[in-house]
Amino acid sequence: MTANPTACIVVIGNEILSGRTQDANINYIAKKLGASGIPVQEVRIIPDVPDVIVKTINEVRAKFTYIFTTGGIGPTHDDITAECIAQAFGVPLEHNAEALAILTEYYKAIGKELNEARMRMSHAPKGASVLTNPVGKFPGFKIENVHILPGVPQVMQNIFDNLLPSLSGGPPIVMHIVTCDVREGDLAEDLREIALRYPTIDIGSYPGVRNDQFVTQLICKGSDAEMVATAGREVAEMAARLGNLLDVAA
Amino acid sequence: MTANPTACIVVIGNEILSGRTQDANINYIAKKLGASGIPVQEVRIIPDVPDVIVKTINEVRAKFTYIFTTGGIGPTHDDITAECIAQAFGVPLEHNAEALAILTEYYKAIGKELNEARMRMSHAPKGASVLTNPVGKFPGFKIENVHILPGVPQVMQNIFDNLLPSLSGGPPIVMHIVTCDVREGDLAEDLREIALRYPTIDIGSYPGVRNDQFVTQLICKGSDAEMVATAGREVAEMAARLGNLLDVAA
Repeated sequence: MTANPTACIVVIGNEILSGRTQDANINYIAKKLGASGIPVQEVRIIPDVPDVIVKTINEVRAKFTYIFTTGGIGPTHDDITAECIAQAFGVPLEHNAEALAILTEYYKAIGKELNEARMRMSHAPKGASVLTNPVGKFPGFKIENVHILPGVPQVMQNIFDNLLPSLSGGPPIVMHIVTCDVREGDLAEDLREIALRYPTIDIGSYPGVRNDQFVTQLICKGSDAEMVATAGREVAEMAARLGNLLDVAA
Repeated sequence: MTANPTACIVVIGNEILSGRTQDANINYIAKKLGASGIPVQEVRIIPDVPDVIVKTINEVRAKFTYIFTTGGIGPTHDDITAECIAQAFGVPLEHNAEALAILTEYYKAIGKELNEARMRMSHAPKGASVLTNPVGKFPGFKIENVHILPGVPQVMQNIFDNLLPSLSGGPPIVMHIVTCDVREGDLAEDLREIALRYPTIDIGSYPGVRNDQFVTQLICKGSDAEMVATAGREVAEMAARLGNLLDVAA
């Protein structure tokens, strides 16, 4: 198995924890990182509580190759991500000169005052660099392996898509998805036997409902594309033998 | 501030981490727990890796009042939640007699064999009790403060809704949501001032887009309904003073 770099997403947001908002960022980031050979290995959703943010960041940044935070950067009093990450790194919070220049130019262009609240959006840990937002203006920040992104999905996506090519990925994770009508209880033994023969391939079974019909999806996943395809063919043959193979996606 | 019990959700699922599946359980559980006065304070999404599951469960069960796991209970080789939770509690994994009786009756009724794979679904940590599924048949389990739920949303919901009344909640968390067209940078100072005067109310600001218009949602949240309403009124007055108040929801 080829080793891939790893990632962890930290969602900072009371609004997700309360259930008021359905998170849309985890799925977006996870898919794109996976396709770049950087599997997401853990996600934390945590509240806007300084101690929790500091402790979480320090725990995960030591454990994973890349960290992505979403949420809590903005002009209001509840936007505390930048200061908490500065604290986690033991560095002061400062007005990042490049970010301040971007904000100054932007507010001048639209004829609005760059007041104290808006200037907060240039707050970054000392030593952080700007993550450019090529569409809007408000940037994210990066300090060592931690990428600080906003929570608003469109803005997060603009910044994330722009930074993605700068990350060093491993071979992309490829998947082979077999969908069939065999109940899990009827295929478990045969599937286990295949899984044992492909220890480097992650083989998972997911029951669900599609068009009012119970289906089972069997996913072979790994970074060795040929091996994934071979395991996938065995799984498809097994499904056809035990019931109806509905479709195969690679 | 009235103290509420707390909750943590642990999503066990490679399919969520890979981005192949959009999680639907966090939001469902978080909303219902919040309405019952049990705020979710952290969510972890972790892979199907035994060490990670054991370590995570032991960390969070010491920290929060109630733990809810979703995913990884079923008949296939990748369903390892029950055995990992047994390991976390330092107890053996066993066939739970009540669960086994439910499964035996169910498979007899539909005329299918209760094979070894299906019998795995009665695997539970020694000392766990059954969480009844009043609609389908496959149950969840509970050991001390840890509730073990399946990942398929419909099945999870049936079991969760059935167990919810058994939890001891605090006063429900109530929200007052003010939506306006004032940009965050134009209201941040006034909002901070209100937030300082209501230290027991959690006041958050969330920029977003609605009907192609930029809007800001200002949320006052807490378990003291009267105080939330008073703070909410002040926030609404502020929004109307600085721009257009679009709507207020309580």
